[in-house]
Amino acid sequence: MPPFKKIVIFGVGLIGGSFALALKKAGVVEQVVGVGRRLETLERAKSLGIIDAIGDVSAVTDADLVLIATPVAQTQAVLASIAPYLQPHTVITDAGSTKSDVAAAARLALGEKIAQFVPGHPIAGREQNGPEAALADLYVGKKVVLTALPENASTSVASVSAAWKHCGALIHELSAEEHDAVFAAVSHLPHFLAYALVDDIAANSKADLLFQYAASGFRDFTRIAGSSPEMWRDIVLANQSALLVELDTYINQLNKMRSLLQAADGNGLQKIFSQAQTARQSWITAIEMAEQKRTYEQGGD
Amino acid sequence: MPPFKKIVIFGVGLIGGSFALALKKAGVVEQVVGVGRRLETLERAKSLGIIDAIGDVSAVTDADLVLIATPVAQTQAVLASIAPYLQPHTVITDAGSTKSDVAAAARLALGEKIAQFVPGHPIAGREQNGPEAALADLYVGKKVVLTALPENASTSVASVSAAWKHCGALIHELSAEEHDAVFAAVSHLPHFLAYALVDDIAANSKADLLFQYAASGFRDFTRIAGSSPEMWRDIVLANQSALLVELDTYINQLNKMRSLLQAADGNGLQKIFSQAQTARQSWITAIEMAEQKRTYEQGGD
Repeated sequence: MPPFKKIVIFGVGLIGGSFALALKKAGVVEQVVGVGRRLETLERAKSLGIIDAIGDVSAVTDADLVLIATPVAQTQAVLASIAPYLQPHTVITDAGSTKSDVAAAARLALGEKIAQFVPGHPIAGREQNGPEAALADLYVGKKVVLTALPENASTSVASVSAAWKHCGALIHELSAEEHDAVFAAVSHLPHFLAYALVDDIAANSKADLLFQYAASGFRDFTRIAGSSPEMWRDIVLANQSALLVELDTYINQLNKMRSLLQAADGNGLQKIFSQAQTARQSWITAIEMAEQKRTYEQGGD
Repeated sequence: MPPFKKIVIFGVGLIGGSFALALKKAGVVEQVVGVGRRLETLERAKSLGIIDAIGDVSAVTDADLVLIATPVAQTQAVLASIAPYLQPHTVITDAGSTKSDVAAAARLALGEKIAQFVPGHPIAGREQNGPEAALADLYVGKKVVLTALPENASTSVASVSAAWKHCGALIHELSAEEHDAVFAAVSHLPHFLAYALVDDIAANSKADLLFQYAASGFRDFTRIAGSSPEMWRDIVLANQSALLVELDTYINQLNKMRSLLQAADGNGLQKIFSQAQTARQSWITAIEMAEQKRTYEQGGD
């Protein structure tokens, strides 16, 4: 018998749908039930073989595992709606990009049942969204960060961890605070900066002329400014305090470099540019080595 | 007889070498002479068929056209060194990323012969450098900005323009000030911001942890921070005043967005994110339409 008899997924788009497809492909789940606000989306997911049945909040009653993969702003409401139906053996996890706020929301929504909730964040995505974008191998070789709560039983954490491992993911554990500081720096801040630059240029009286000469470097730098404004509004608000810290550090760095430029301090600027180039090159090399190692361990070529 | 009997190129790397290969492929030049500081590089360029002969500054004496494609910091010295050999029929151009400083340097170096110098900036590049990186079709469909001086005869501008058109490039004309303001905004500022972010993260006490979770968005955003520190030191210093204007505008924009984040003003942030997303999408659409139109006009598919 597969380890999971029934998994309930709230939100059957790219993230939730790929989780379902991966577990089915691994043969570790008997039944996947989808729940969501739009029946039409659920029906598409069912016809694509992502879910076996469409349910409502009461579906969690006899579930082994529940994944909340709705937009983050809905997490608290979803948790509150399922709380009355939760049985002690059911483990819940989520897929939100911020974790301190999710833990706080879960405490409010679940009360005494908080020990059953193991927060998580799969680091994977695509440009496309919706059930049609879901892929059985989206999580293969990707990181999933679990930010376990002090109340979590180790068996609950192990259950969530096992599900993601069956999807091919690599499990990392961080505290919610560490997680949020890390992603403020390497993800939320770059998005904020890219949006700032494109809006800045669009507001210029010579915007048409400027865009005419923007080339491939600008295109790559601003790719993340093509992301969903609603989603990123929610993320930056959810991670407000950590992002403010990173933003202030960055603005200080820019002001320092502005002074060097104003003083025409070529050596000072070159030192910073070189440090950045070297750090980035080391990072790329480390990524490539890790990828080779993984390919080797998997017996691939 | 081809329109150019003799072209002299200072610096036979990616930019100068590709110019030579493109003109040879078009069959519009009888002889290309390469000049440079490193004999070994010139010999490699000759064995690759990029240049026909290796020369020194005196080679410009009977040249129709001279291209300065050395690092920008050397432009003034190169112009000063060739000034004594320049005959009235010879036209000179360059390939530097900044134009006001080049015009000023040329005035100092060339004196009365300034009318023979038509400043230019081909908007093309690759990650690789050196003669081995040169490609005959590097400039096909790419923009070349000419920032003609008031002193230039229209025949001189036409000669430089013709050479670049033979390379397949599209000619644009701007004033040096317009050029420098445009590239400060869409190229020099993004490089500055990307270097700032990577150095900022590398200096963090948890840098190793941060880099471990940096993903594809970060990789694209910071790709330009992999560029040559020496080259970018020279560019930002050469375009100091225009870059300071753009940098100050950007820092103001960031401070405005910081206030919105601090005030948890979701609507205000979403508005900026949306404006940026929309502007970027329009820009990408315009690029794609221009590419299709060009393909159509060229009779391609």
